[in-house]
Amino acid sequence: MFNKRLLIPGPAPIPPAVARAMSTEMFNHRGPRFAELIAEVTASLKRVFQTESRLFILTSSGTGAMEAAVVNFLSPGDRIVSLVNGLFGDRFASIAAAYGGNVERLESAWGEPLDYAALEARLREDKDSSIRAITVVHNESSTGMMNDLEKISRIRGDHPALLLVDTVSSMGAVDLPVDRLGVDVCFTGSQKALLLPPGLSFISASERAWKAAASSKMPKYYFNLQTAEELLKKGQTPFTPALPQFVALREALQIYFAEGRENCYARHRRMASAVRAAARALGLEPLVKEERFASPTVTAIMNPPNISGKRLQVMMLERFGIEIAGGQGALEGQIFRVGHLGAVDGLDIIAGISALEICLQLLGHPVKAGEAVGAAEEAMST
Amino acid sequence: MFNKRLLIPGPAPIPPAVARAMSTEMFNHRGPRFAELIAEVTASLKRVFQTESRLFILTSSGTGAMEAAVVNFLSPGDRIVSLVNGLFGDRFASIAAAYGGNVERLESAWGEPLDYAALEARLREDKDSSIRAITVVHNESSTGMMNDLEKISRIRGDHPALLLVDTVSSMGAVDLPVDRLGVDVCFTGSQKALLLPPGLSFISASERAWKAAASSKMPKYYFNLQTAEELLKKGQTPFTPALPQFVALREALQIYFAEGRENCYARHRRMASAVRAAARALGLEPLVKEERFASPTVTAIMNPPNISGKRLQVMMLERFGIEIAGGQGALEGQIFRVGHLGAVDGLDIIAGISALEICLQLLGHPVKAGEAVGAAEEAMST
Repeated sequence: MFNKRLLIPGPAPIPPAVARAMSTEMFNHRGPRFAELIAEVTASLKRVFQTESRLFILTSSGTGAMEAAVVNFLSPGDRIVSLVNGLFGDRFASIAAAYGGNVERLESAWGEPLDYAALEARLREDKDSSIRAITVVHNESSTGMMNDLEKISRIRGDHPALLLVDTVSSMGAVDLPVDRLGVDVCFTGSQKALLLPPGLSFISASERAWKAAASSKMPKYYFNLQTAEELLKKGQTPFTPALPQFVALREALQIYFAEGRENCYARHRRMASAVRAAARALGLEPLVKEERFASPTVTAIMNPPNISGKRLQVMMLERFGIEIAGGQGALEGQIFRVGHLGAVDGLDIIAGISALEICLQLLGHPVKAGEAVGAAEEAMST
Repeated sequence: MFNKRLLIPGPAPIPPAVARAMSTEMFNHRGPRFAELIAEVTASLKRVFQTESRLFILTSSGTGAMEAAVVNFLSPGDRIVSLVNGLFGDRFASIAAAYGGNVERLESAWGEPLDYAALEARLREDKDSSIRAITVVHNESSTGMMNDLEKISRIRGDHPALLLVDTVSSMGAVDLPVDRLGVDVCFTGSQKALLLPPGLSFISASERAWKAAASSKMPKYYFNLQTAEELLKKGQTPFTPALPQFVALREALQIYFAEGRENCYARHRRMASAVRAAARALGLEPLVKEERFASPTVTAIMNPPNISGKRLQVMMLERFGIEIAGGQGALEGQIFRVGHLGAVDGLDIIAGISALEICLQLLGHPVKAGEAVGAAEEAMST
């Protein structure tokens, strides 16, 4: 297959210029060239995050940043409320617990909206402000559910709990004004909407979070952001950074801002609408029912009756070189997932939907050729 | 400067084919292509490590693997003996302490040999085997000292303490038979002798270490090797890996084994001898006096009398595009360091020595043009 298409929720496709930038020669990560580079990309990332506070670049996947979000701002025994409606919400709670946090999970079924009312009630009854942090995953890649951060921010209100937010699969693809929303700690990975290969993660910290960091007692070293702050002042990272990703990040951010944030948000919304419209035209059901919670970057679709999602996945790959994803954890065997983020556009989605029509028909699902593609085209143009 | 030369102790120069491999398109890290890749490179890395035990690939710098070496095998309160004669030995002890280890430091001055006798005495008096681990940095990049692992292994003898060894700047460049030496946990980084950019680290664990891991109580998540083991069975990593480095790793290891291990070791020894001979011909003194402790990958040289090492460093960079390193921590302002590892050969070293002759002369140091280069050539041919 000479033309592979990657429609998984990350790593997302990257632009050719970013791929070429990865071929950089090595250079001194404690010299002037790196100092200039880290200053530039840190400033650009703050624009992506819409924050004027601190931002650090870590050499790790998004989960490394998730660990950093926990261990830098909390202490063992701290009461932490974790909102969970998918695999990554569960992971966030697990990390907090692994480091000794006193974690209360507010769980909803995977694919269902968060229990906003329960959060509101829990914070209201917390008269002595014993809750130190709320963890939430903005965009659940495991379900295609985008949780309502605006609402969570409103519910948190004046409660002093820190708001720790995973935006791994949404930052860059959705309007996420970190400062305006009062998000205290926000992190993402390089390999999603930000047009870069995996290898780096990005994390911001509000003034309030930074004050809390000073008294944090959870153990840490590699992910210690205080050390990162000290070294950043010298234009360095504490430990040898993934240089190729740093060089490519400059290129990726230039491409990102050349498209324009609003255009990028709109492109992701269009692709999501196209996939949902196509699913319905094929008689399939998106896992996330309500449009307002539909993720702009990944759509989970219930497996067609009597057809194995795994078989569909393998057929898409073998016939067309198209990679889609299956369900994870509790949803394994129930859904397939289509990623639509990063360096992809509507016509990549059309190609994927065309392949889906052909494969589903071969698998015995009733399909009228071109109908789902047509529905996707219409969804994209409105 | 169109032809930059990187003579720092890492990131080391990489072969052009490795740089090109970094430009890979993205693909599914949970699909068959990645499964095949991780199986192949893990097996090759075991040959580099000369181990038949477990080996894991982490998306982090070497310090991440250092943290993994501590948190996976120990519990808070465990007695740990840390051998320290440089920055990285100090870092190893600091990580163990940060995670609640009861750390006893056996310190020597930076640039001096380890206190082997003190280690021997300490283990002999430890009748109830309360010492759970010994941490040691094989090759101290901060001083150019290669510590005697064979000797430490002999001293440890039958004592049940785990031997945890940092080989970040030596693995691949020096004969390091991990299993034969009884090293329980061994780790390195991708950006040193192994011909790859930074972004990955590699860590092995003996059967004995793996048994200890089962009862380890230090908190961990991102660096949890039990999770890594589970996922490796499926041909995956727990979290999204730095894909470009994985793809380039296959290329790098092919180049590494094509040169041949013994040839690679010999090349590094030759380069080290050349640098030391040149230093002496210039009337300069290597920090590490005894030849048997001289690192094959990095040489620290005392600053010439009345000449600032910083000025020398800047002049080398500005005139010739050559990057050398300064001193770190306790040795800042006292030494400069020349790295000779990775994709460099004797003639790169000759170029560096030529530049050194010219710059030192300009700075007022007495130099006879060509003398140090001649000494280096002679050292290389013996």
